[in-house]
Amino acid sequence: MSMRYSSTLPRWGVQEVVISGPETGNPFAEQQLAGTFVSDGGKECTAPGFYDGEGRYMVRFMPDEEGGYTFRITGSFLPEALTGSFTVTPAQDGVHGPVQVSQTYHFAYADGTPYRPVGTTCYVWHLQTPQMFENTLRTLENSPFNKIRFCVFPKHYDYNHNEPFAYPFAAAEKAEGQAYAWDFTRFDPVYFRHLEDAILRLGNLGIEADIIMLHPYDRWGFSRMSQPQMQNYFRYLVSRIAAYRNVWWSLANEYDLMPDMVTGDWEALAQVIQQQDPYCRLTSIHNCFGFYDHSRPWVTHCCLQRQEIYRTTEMVDQWRETYRKPIIVDELGYEGNIQHGWGNLTGEEETRRFWEATIRGGYAGHGETYFNDNEILWWSHGDVLHGTSPARLQFLRGFLDSLPGPLEPWRSNWDDRCACVPGEDDNAPPVIVYYYSFMRPSFRDFTLPEGTAYQAQVLDTWEMTCVDAGVKEGSFRLPLPGRPFAAVCLTRVR
Amino acid sequence: MSMRYSSTLPRWGVQEVVISGPETGNPFAEQQLAGTFVSDGGKECTAPGFYDGEGRYMVRFMPDEEGGYTFRITGSFLPEALTGSFTVTPAQDGVHGPVQVSQTYHFAYADGTPYRPVGTTCYVWHLQTPQMFENTLRTLENSPFNKIRFCVFPKHYDYNHNEPFAYPFAAAEKAEGQAYAWDFTRFDPVYFRHLEDAILRLGNLGIEADIIMLHPYDRWGFSRMSQPQMQNYFRYLVSRIAAYRNVWWSLANEYDLMPDMVTGDWEALAQVIQQQDPYCRLTSIHNCFGFYDHSRPWVTHCCLQRQEIYRTTEMVDQWRETYRKPIIVDELGYEGNIQHGWGNLTGEEETRRFWEATIRGGYAGHGETYFNDNEILWWSHGDVLHGTSPARLQFLRGFLDSLPGPLEPWRSNWDDRCACVPGEDDNAPPVIVYYYSFMRPSFRDFTLPEGTAYQAQVLDTWEMTCVDAGVKEGSFRLPLPGRPFAAVCLTRVR
Repeated sequence: MSMRYSSTLPRWGVQEVVISGPETGNPFAEQQLAGTFVSDGGKECTAPGFYDGEGRYMVRFMPDEEGGYTFRITGSFLPEALTGSFTVTPAQDGVHGPVQVSQTYHFAYADGTPYRPVGTTCYVWHLQTPQMFENTLRTLENSPFNKIRFCVFPKHYDYNHNEPFAYPFAAAEKAEGQAYAWDFTRFDPVYFRHLEDAILRLGNLGIEADIIMLHPYDRWGFSRMSQPQMQNYFRYLVSRIAAYRNVWWSLANEYDLMPDMVTGDWEALAQVIQQQDPYCRLTSIHNCFGFYDHSRPWVTHCCLQRQEIYRTTEMVDQWRETYRKPIIVDELGYEGNIQHGWGNLTGEEETRRFWEATIRGGYAGHGETYFNDNEILWWSHGDVLHGTSPARLQFLRGFLDSLPGPLEPWRSNWDDRCACVPGEDDNAPPVIVYYYSFMRPSFRDFTLPEGTAYQAQVLDTWEMTCVDAGVKEGSFRLPLPGRPFAAVCLTRVR
Repeated sequence: MSMRYSSTLPRWGVQEVVISGPETGNPFAEQQLAGTFVSDGGKECTAPGFYDGEGRYMVRFMPDEEGGYTFRITGSFLPEALTGSFTVTPAQDGVHGPVQVSQTYHFAYADGTPYRPVGTTCYVWHLQTPQMFENTLRTLENSPFNKIRFCVFPKHYDYNHNEPFAYPFAAAEKAEGQAYAWDFTRFDPVYFRHLEDAILRLGNLGIEADIIMLHPYDRWGFSRMSQPQMQNYFRYLVSRIAAYRNVWWSLANEYDLMPDMVTGDWEALAQVIQQQDPYCRLTSIHNCFGFYDHSRPWVTHCCLQRQEIYRTTEMVDQWRETYRKPIIVDELGYEGNIQHGWGNLTGEEETRRFWEATIRGGYAGHGETYFNDNEILWWSHGDVLHGTSPARLQFLRGFLDSLPGPLEPWRSNWDDRCACVPGEDDNAPPVIVYYYSFMRPSFRDFTLPEGTAYQAQVLDTWEMTCVDAGVKEGSFRLPLPGRPFAAVCLTRVR
């Protein structure tokens, strides 16, 4: 029996306690272990362990306090508890902890730093060639994206019919004519270690990993596991990766396309997450048609696909009212030119939908589906970006980062959308933003409350310009570009 | 007592019977006259007369049959009926008679020729300078527009604060501080003769005159007449102009912004039209916010302004289902760049909205509001067009004219809109049209019923190209431009 772990690690890093144990039988199914970690401050946390193959057992733990910790591991194969201690040093530069819900509709890192999701989707980027895996990370590093949605399981869908380098489950003996057969009680740690590598690499880039635990695009049978098999898989996955601070749980992509699943099944899976994840990572479930009941307590934020073709993020303010949780429209249609209507938007429309979400106090997610002869599409494979929207989303992110707080819907007119950063005086908030969408006024008239003055800026969200228009008081007319996608930002100076 | 009229006139022309009569008192209020016209075929029609000032009384009548007619005029000032007869010759070249509802959702001229409205709006084009009046007619002559919406009364609104050359009513003595005062019992025939000239000139160009009888943009008091005054005005107007074959009645623009009007008032005014107009001209009423109840029997077609900002003509199929009448979205927003959201659409969006209406079996109306230093905006004044949509609407009109019948919604997918020209076999109609709107597929897959073959054409509705893609059978893939605003037209050849 041996145990190893790190004697020091930074706050919000991962302590990995590795213990040798039995290889006989089916350790995945027959052995259990868990660790209880207690900080000097008295905060206690019990983290589940898991079998990592080759007689190796692990408990991973993310400390969220600095200072000393002690721990105690118990396991079915351990004659007595194993104990140890370690020291947590300050967080590494640029590490702010896990993202949490903040101010009902928004997000912040654990240290209070605002987090404004500008996400993208690459469903199985980690299951492509090693070269493409690196390409994707390099692309992300130089992109506006601070979140990426991707699947645990391989994906079978248009433009994506390749086999992954490995499979999440151990192979079973195939029946005559059967293409795939799995022993769902045995996992392949190689597959999950690669997933963890992806999560870690994203974390190093400051990118949240929105993990899609189930999806219906499947020829392997992973979408048709029995409920006990699914729950077992959820337990294993959560035990392995919950400690990574950038993990978010998405129970499914297009949950309502999953064969044979009823609401009770999803609720049971959500229960598994709640039981296994001591950190209460952000949790959501993504629809194809009707939304899941996002008022369920385990749903931390609404992860939504648009429900109609002409209004997508234009509904964000209504959805906020309905669910009183952060809204991320992470499938609003993708920039591209493939045959499907969800994958052939212009960069202009992709960008517009982001701003429509933003100005309503919500968030959005990007995707890209440009057809090419190699059939390498960002939305599925990652690799490199071809579109025109990412540069504009960088501009959007820069704009959001320049604000003193999150945007809340505020006094829109019928032909603009307006938001503010709220302050003490609701009639004269610190920042007011107007967005004109597809309209293209060549000027607009404004009236400010008496006694106030605002610095006016005219934004062209497509041309990515922000032009100072002077300090304004009372009633004034502001010349605008007369092109679509203009915005006005008024910042209170008196 | 003298009477004059034409001994011959073409079918669908106007017979004008002019009778001299008393000038004393208030002939508008105190005298009545009407004419009964009987064709050789035995068709009888009673047309109201009106006082045209200077002792001149008139009855106008539009014959809709060729051959001989007799008539009989009675009047309060006539001791006995006056009679006469005339001959109706075949219609002039290019004249097809008045437009009527056809096939529930569409329109045709009286001779059966299809009429596919591609309208525009110039609210008070006829009340500008004589030079601009001529300019507007010249612009219209070289435009795609076969219908124009305009007001009887002058208009007081942004960019339009000038005085008209005359007023519809005789002036009354002003009270102290009163800017305008009218004797609503006396009309100014000069004003109405000019309106008639406008209608005639439009008719000569083959353009329907969609006459807006009331509107709320008013500093003169014409929107605040009493109900009896309004009904009197309706009687006079209808008596004067109903005989012009290109007249359509629009009770109001933005009826719901009219001060002091309730539904019963509108119904009473509709009754006046029904009583005075022997031709049952097309009749509608235009909204700002909520629609009027277009299921009322006197409403021949729905003349609609969009009700929300993101979906306008995208609602046409639903409105068809609701009202079972032709749908004309004659205010879908205007191409331009003024401050108002209804007046700053791109040419692309203006055109897209037309196609969205078309593909749903409906029709749309154009307008243009480009700001310029002269403040001459087509939507209000006419003059010349500046925008990019009219050329595309010409392309649309040409496309519609090439079809063997009207388009009906047919088997849309979620990410295209589809219509067909219906035929005997609903599975394989003579023409099938797909429209891709803001999406930009680089290809689409199609499957045709076994045993059929279709000529495929790829349209770029913005670039105004129509490219032959060959005769197709069975399942096939069609390369598309990969730009927004593409359409596919499949014409059955077997």
